[in-house]
Amino acid sequence: MTTESKIQVAVIMGSKSDWDTMKNASEILREFGVPHECRVISAHRTPELLAEFIKNAEKRGLEVIIAGAGGAAHLAGVAAAHTILPVLGVPMESKLQGLDSLLSTVQMPAGIPVGTLAIGSAGARNAALFAIAILARQQPGLQEKLKAFRQEQKQKIMKETLPC
Amino acid sequence: MTTESKIQVAVIMGSKSDWDTMKNASEILREFGVPHECRVISAHRTPELLAEFIKNAEKRGLEVIIAGAGGAAHLAGVAAAHTILPVLGVPMESKLQGLDSLLSTVQMPAGIPVGTLAIGSAGARNAALFAIAILARQQPGLQEKLKAFRQEQKQKIMKETLPC
Amino acid sequence: MTTESKIQVAVIMGSKSDWDTMKNASEILREFGVPHECRVISAHRTPELLAEFIKNAEKRGLEVIIAGAGGAAHLAGVAAAHTILPVLGVPMESKLQGLDSLLSTVQMPAGIPVGTLAIGSAGARNAALFAIAILARQQPGLQEKLKAFRQEQKQKIMKETLPC
Amino acid sequence: MTTESKIQVAVIMGSKSDWDTMKNASEILREFGVPHECRVISAHRTPELLAEFIKNAEKRGLEVIIAGAGGAAHLAGVAAAHTILPVLGVPMESKLQGLDSLLSTVQMPAGIPVGTLAIGSAGARNAALFAIAILARQQPGLQEKLKAFRQEQKQKIMKETLPC
Amino acid sequence: MTTESKIQVAVIMGSKSDWDTMKNASEILREFGVPHECRVISAHRTPELLAEFIKNAEKRGLEVIIAGAGGAAHLAGVAAAHTILPVLGVPMESKLQGLDSLLSTVQMPAGIPVGTLAIGSAGARNAALFAIAILARQQPGLQEKLKAFRQEQKQKIMKETLPC
Amino acid sequence: MTTESKIQVAVIMGSKSDWDTMKNASEILREFGVPHECRVISAHRTPELLAEFIKNAEKRGLEVIIAGAGGAAHLAGVAAAHTILPVLGVPMESKLQGLDSLLSTVQMPAGIPVGTLAIGSAGARNAALFAIAILARQQPGLQEKLKAFRQEQKQKIMKETLPC
Amino acid sequence: MTTESKIQVAVIMGSKSDWDTMKNASEILREFGVPHECRVISAHRTPELLAEFIKNAEKRGLEVIIAGAGGAAHLAGVAAAHTILPVLGVPMESKLQGLDSLLSTVQMPAGIPVGTLAIGSAGARNAALFAIAILARQQPGLQEKLKAFRQEQKQKIMKETLPC
Amino acid sequence: MTTESKIQVAVIMGSKSDWDTMKNASEILREFGVPHECRVISAHRTPELLAEFIKNAEKRGLEVIIAGAGGAAHLAGVAAAHTILPVLGVPMESKLQGLDSLLSTVQMPAGIPVGTLAIGSAGARNAALFAIAILARQQPGLQEKLKAFRQEQKQKIMKETLPC
Repeated sequence: MTTESKIQVAVIMGSKSDWDTMKNASEILREFGVPHECRVISAHRTPELLAEFIKNAEKRGLEVIIAGAGGAAHLAGVAAAHTILPVLGVPMESKLQGLDSLLSTVQMPAGIPVGTLAIGSAGARNAALFAIAILARQQPGLQEKLKAFRQEQKQKIMKETLPC
Repeated sequence: MTTESKIQVAVIMGSKSDWDTMKNASEILREFGVPHECRVISAHRTPELLAEFIKNAEKRGLEVIIAGAGGAAHLAGVAAAHTILPVLGVPMESKLQGLDSLLSTVQMPAGIPVGTLAIGSAGARNAALFAIAILARQQPGLQEKLKAFRQEQKQKIMKETLPC
Repeated sequence: MTTESKIQVAVIMGSKSDWDTMKNASEILREFGVPHECRVISAHRTPELLAEFIKNAEKRGLEVIIAGAGGAAHLAGVAAAHTILPVLGVPMESKLQGLDSLLSTVQMPAGIPVGTLAIGSAGARNAALFAIAILARQQPGLQEKLKAFRQEQKQKIMKETLPC
Repeated sequence: MTTESKIQVAVIMGSKSDWDTMKNASEILREFGVPHECRVISAHRTPELLAEFIKNAEKRGLEVIIAGAGGAAHLAGVAAAHTILPVLGVPMESKLQGLDSLLSTVQMPAGIPVGTLAIGSAGARNAALFAIAILARQQPGLQEKLKAFRQEQKQKIMKETLPC
Repeated sequence: MTTESKIQVAVIMGSKSDWDTMKNASEILREFGVPHECRVISAHRTPELLAEFIKNAEKRGLEVIIAGAGGAAHLAGVAAAHTILPVLGVPMESKLQGLDSLLSTVQMPAGIPVGTLAIGSAGARNAALFAIAILARQQPGLQEKLKAFRQEQKQKIMKETLPC
Repeated sequence: MTTESKIQVAVIMGSKSDWDTMKNASEILREFGVPHECRVISAHRTPELLAEFIKNAEKRGLEVIIAGAGGAAHLAGVAAAHTILPVLGVPMESKLQGLDSLLSTVQMPAGIPVGTLAIGSAGARNAALFAIAILARQQPGLQEKLKAFRQEQKQKIMKETLPC
Repeated sequence: MTTESKIQVAVIMGSKSDWDTMKNASEILREFGVPHECRVISAHRTPELLAEFIKNAEKRGLEVIIAGAGGAAHLAGVAAAHTILPVLGVPMESKLQGLDSLLSTVQMPAGIPVGTLAIGSAGARNAALFAIAILARQQPGLQEKLKAFRQEQKQKIMKETLPC
Repeated sequence: MTTESKIQVAVIMGSKSDWDTMKNASEILREFGVPHECRVISAHRTPELLAEFIKNAEKRGLEVIIAGAGGAAHLAGVAAAHTILPVLGVPMESKLQGLDSLLSTVQMPAGIPVGTLAIGSAGARNAALFAIAILARQQPGLQEKLKAFRQEQKQKIMKETLPC
């Protein structure tokens, strides 16, 4: 097994119902060939598991944590409290359309940052792309893939036609 | 030392700057003669301390936790995750006027409740009164004090005059 | 009839249409074996009934009031005005997604607290769990049940698998 | 004493601190010569007094109730529950800039209306003007005064000059 | 034709699509036997018609105007600018759930009041009930009908049962 | 007097207190040498004056209307109802920080557009710049001035230094 | 080819999925006979294309840019940065109901204005009408068409009947 | 000069007035010994400079971009459009308390991520800490410093005492 195949990113979420959104992160990571794992871990229902998982993640050599949660979304913030790894937060859509999830995730106090992405599936995709941008600092191969991805999405837009 | 003098309520807050608000909870508890303690504990900066403190609080026989925090206010929710004691949350005023603190505190997922009070010092006072209402279920003396408190505040309003 | 079978919690709501949400509170209470009653009582359409019901509830030895209401949700606050019992508020989803219900319930003035839970059915479930946490202070059996409930929900999450 | 000098409007407010705003209602009523009274009455701290005051107001022949309150502003709604008189609500500025007061006042359920005015002192002035508009339906003298008031405020604006 | 059969209330709305909401006002007025008329008039698309209609309404002896509009809801405010009759505003549900309609209707400047009701059909019903409360000041028959209406809705709630 | 010195833009506002904000529009227009006039006109307090002023403005050959108003800000929308000239709206800062002014100005129904700028003085400056952009379509001199203005503000930013 | 048939307005949008909304702008422009073009161009995915397209649009003699975008809607603002042509922004409905799109579009800093229309399809239609109002300053034919359009929509409203 | 002394982070902001907030980022970076530079660059006033600066930053070997902006805050998003480097966004406090800045920064469409931090100076500090967390993936020295920083802030909280 090469170093590259070691798990590099953990995608965690507060509830299994978040998977529908968070699978978008997993799909992007798979598309870029980034070894990752996905887990349901709740800041409220499994607090010890969260602490343990995050501390182990750092020890196991993971590079980035992606955490998706909704409502009083504490998952990303509490994960960040347990590690110096970069933690990315994805606010779930919720009863208040994700405004509660967004504010609970992004308004962290000075000292413990969470890099927050957009509400919902766009945020999940972007969390994966942001994680890849971090990993790409050390993996030139990912830089090339990112550039190709950007180029491709540019081409796709440039080919769009409208029945104006 | 009687059972009554044992610490019954913990008033915790995420930052020393929250004391200006949270001291209102302490003042009410003192006024009602409820033994309590006050601590700065951060869900993000001291996560292990929080877990340990809350678990110990339950073991030490405390009855209610009051937690005040602002912004991405995770303190009450994470405290609630570590105990079956009733946890009361007080959202601090913040950059977004406390809306972020309120939503981060109140929008807890099913399974781990936080009884949330109003934003700011009114909420801090009411958290103490709510804690007293809980304690009063077992302490008839507190029931009498609560009734007297209510009576007094009623009288105060009834005596108000306006230069109409 | 034993003391335990005496009604301990009242679940009231402003309109029959709130039952779909508030039945979640009743289900949890039943699951924990807590004797309770459910009533439609409106702060606006039946104000005298509300005053009378709440005052009687206290006299009848009830321990906790759970009040669910939507829009200009005054039920919990007005209930709290008539008793020193702990009153828990559940904001209904509404035209403004429950933001109006939430603010009307939680922003109580200093002196008359309402312990507010999340908007909608998660809040209804949590109001019941919070009521049980209060009752558990006096009923060791409920403490055990609460711990088991927490353990079970922890196990459920730990068993979740994702097709990552 | 003539019929005209009988108290026609009650201006009530939840706290003495609301007087600074609500005195604007009293000033307009005085300006128009409408006999009125002002009282601090709280829906939460003096619920029985509120019920009694409102029911008596109707019996005493008052015509309109103006109620100002802030936060979880239940005063106007609960007043309306106790009378068929028109009840006007004035949301106070508050921690959330009056958004909580506004939603708590205006979002009444079908069946018990509150005619809500703007947040703060503009709302207090307008509540008085609206009360006068109601009274004017029966008092031609007030119609003339209202027309003159409108004319005067029109003239005032038309005379404004700007250093453009 | 008796005096009673003269049109007393006008129900206007900015667009025919508002009728689904505003018909609730008409139904209540019909139920109470209040002669009224309904019109689509837009503050923006038919400004002269609005000015003319409102001025005529006052001359024709109408007593109350009810105006429903959505989005940048100017109808009630501009109607109020053209008359000293009481004007009631009903904010329509809209792209922003009626928050824009509500703020556009209620936040009137000092001098020109609009008595604002809740967003949507509850507000439409309540606008009619509020208009009736105003008319009832002069028509004892309406007072009796209002009391009966209140009594009936009280009875309806008191008979509700829940499968608790 | 040349054609150029004919009044081309009207800057109107709902209250003299709006001048502090709206003078920023006037300053920009003066800086660009655009003949303009400024008036206090209220949609609510002087509705006939508004209708007349706007209709005359179109007849007098004005090219653009800039309207600033706060709260239930109807000025721009009602102005737009009376003319086919482009109408620009500037939402004033207000009790709700300008959110009410913004929504009341921008959320116009299909058929009567208002081009809305930012809340407060930035919006006032930009309304003037937008009016100039419209006028520049016919006045090449203004195109040159606009380009120079853009160039100058670019230079100003490029010269900024920070004590990093 | 006459001058009139030269493209005068560009309707751009950040994503093909915005077409459902933005086609309303195209339909109005077609109805008024205004030559225009429609393009998908993203401020984020095709930034160089945007800069180039906008600069060329100015050189090609276009008169107005209409830009529709959602979420962190930067399209109109960045377009405005590259031209002195009037730029109109249409906020798309989005996860936060368009509030994010609206604020991202309208809250431009002093110096670079965007004339913003309502959220969604009403805004798209109005952007086209506003563009026409600008063009009409130079094209008397469009003035006549605009007046006819206004007259027609007035007639349509005046003919509406309601089953009151 | 060693590799370590090469500029690794750029701190850019839309206006010199943002420096008061953004200097908090610079201070943290200096404290951690991270070579960085600070620039005022506006997405709207200097769009070409922004594109050029960002593209050069990537070529010059910078690792992370921190962008602070307010209102319709497009700086971070447009920066991200021009590079595959990780871009961190800091929403400035603004007329709408930073809600507009936050939504404009965080709600990026899928494909171009911005890692968003809290509103204001806490966000600026955390952006620097997040950048350091990214750099630390390659620089073990920074990992040690981050751990020490965390330890220190934990100690600071644990030493806080309250006059309870």
